[in-house]
Amino acid sequence: MSVHQWPVRVYYEDTDAGGLVYYANYLRYAERARTEMLREIGFESTRMMEDDGLGLVVRDLSASYIKPARLDYALTIFTTLENKTATRWQLKQLAKKEDDILFAMDIQIVCINLESGRPTRFPNWLMQKI
Amino acid sequence: MSVHQWPVRVYYEDTDAGGLVYYANYLRYAERARTEMLREIGFESTRMMEDDGLGLVVRDLSASYIKPARLDYALTIFTTLENKTATRWQLKQLAKKEDDILFAMDIQIVCINLESGRPTRFPNWLMQKI
Amino acid sequence: MSVHQWPVRVYYEDTDAGGLVYYANYLRYAERARTEMLREIGFESTRMMEDDGLGLVVRDLSASYIKPARLDYALTIFTTLENKTATRWQLKQLAKKEDDILFAMDIQIVCINLESGRPTRFPNWLMQKI
Amino acid sequence: MSVHQWPVRVYYEDTDAGGLVYYANYLRYAERARTEMLREIGFESTRMMEDDGLGLVVRDLSASYIKPARLDYALTIFTTLENKTATRWQLKQLAKKEDDILFAMDIQIVCINLESGRPTRFPNWLMQKI
Repeated sequence: MSVHQWPVRVYYEDTDAGGLVYYANYLRYAERARTEMLREIGFESTRMMEDDGLGLVVRDLSASYIKPARLDYALTIFTTLENKTATRWQLKQLAKKEDDILFAMDIQIVCINLESGRPTRFPNWLMQKI
Repeated sequence: MSVHQWPVRVYYEDTDAGGLVYYANYLRYAERARTEMLREIGFESTRMMEDDGLGLVVRDLSASYIKPARLDYALTIFTTLENKTATRWQLKQLAKKEDDILFAMDIQIVCINLESGRPTRFPNWLMQKI
Repeated sequence: MSVHQWPVRVYYEDTDAGGLVYYANYLRYAERARTEMLREIGFESTRMMEDDGLGLVVRDLSASYIKPARLDYALTIFTTLENKTATRWQLKQLAKKEDDILFAMDIQIVCINLESGRPTRFPNWLMQKI
Repeated sequence: MSVHQWPVRVYYEDTDAGGLVYYANYLRYAERARTEMLREIGFESTRMMEDDGLGLVVRDLSASYIKPARLDYALTIFTTLENKTATRWQLKQLAKKEDDILFAMDIQIVCINLESGRPTRFPNWLMQKI
């Protein structure tokens, strides 16, 4: 299965007074990468939200903070779809600086009805594309 | 006109690698204070958004960063409604640490239709309450 | 072992266009709660950072998003220290709305030297207090 | 004087429950653009912070929210240095979607000593480059 790569730059907004990237912000980087991976196959969140009232949301994640990232670092987010069923996708995401892995995350995505908050199956057109 | 006060604490999430509160985050503090000022008069954003499809949005602001705030500071946000018309509210907001003013902002709020993005008059019930 | 409780309110800044709290922001809530738990036993991040050049950082976390939180929700963060050694603390954190668990997280905290980024033992005075 | 351009994409993290970009987040976009403008002339925040203990901070800003930005928008931030003295830079920044101006900001930047928080002159090498 192919690996998607997306570059992110560390700005002041991402760091904290300890001089390092604030721990929640790796999840923002990861979500940008997932969004761009989906955009490459022709998927836009806006359309699914507006047309179908559906959203992709995170169900579970497990993250390891291996080495700290600092201001001005140029990172690459690597995203791999490891497993997919009609109701759950399992992805692995890494934040690397050159060959160094700084952050690793396993994450499970489900599809929900945005109004009720209830899980539902991914739309067929999306399952076929990914 | 009365002055609304709301306490905020500076956490790691609010600071950046320079050791100070990141400049955009004072706007988050200010919005919390405006929300709580409105909650006190019985207003909840959720209801206006869901029932009327309306939202309060910022039209203009002018901000001065007077002294830097740091991790663990206990700040108070002071909010004064300086002027109101059917289509625009003018507020003054300060972030203080004890008697020191660290941040000052003049801000204008308008009411918009969330779907079209167009400005509209504030609902009557809200104009009467504030 | 006692459970620490800390209230958080969901503001616009915490939500996203799906109408729900953005997934990374539960980690901000959790960090506020951990900070306040430590403040209660007399610990301030600033002092440890400035006096000792040390910081508490997250090593691993595992999070479940059980039910979505929305704008204006009043949440409580429950924090329990489940295990501690000289080099690693294990905590459990929950975000609840009344009796409903919306979010659950297991998290491991280590102490690092902020300049080198290397792990070190927690200071003795901190181990004794917690 | 030349105009710097920097692309930004609107992700979920940038929006709020009203479906629009949260007002504080335009300031994050603007700061990314200023950072990249400076990087182009060979300037990195990290070096100035670590070598000289100096930081560039915002002193005043005045912002207009003209039209709302939404999820998935591709924006461009335009940055112009309008005036510079040894102690203060004045910039104009715009966020545009194609030819539409959504957001406009006048902003003044000063140089401070990060430890004392006091303003100081911009370093000579930086004044000559910009």
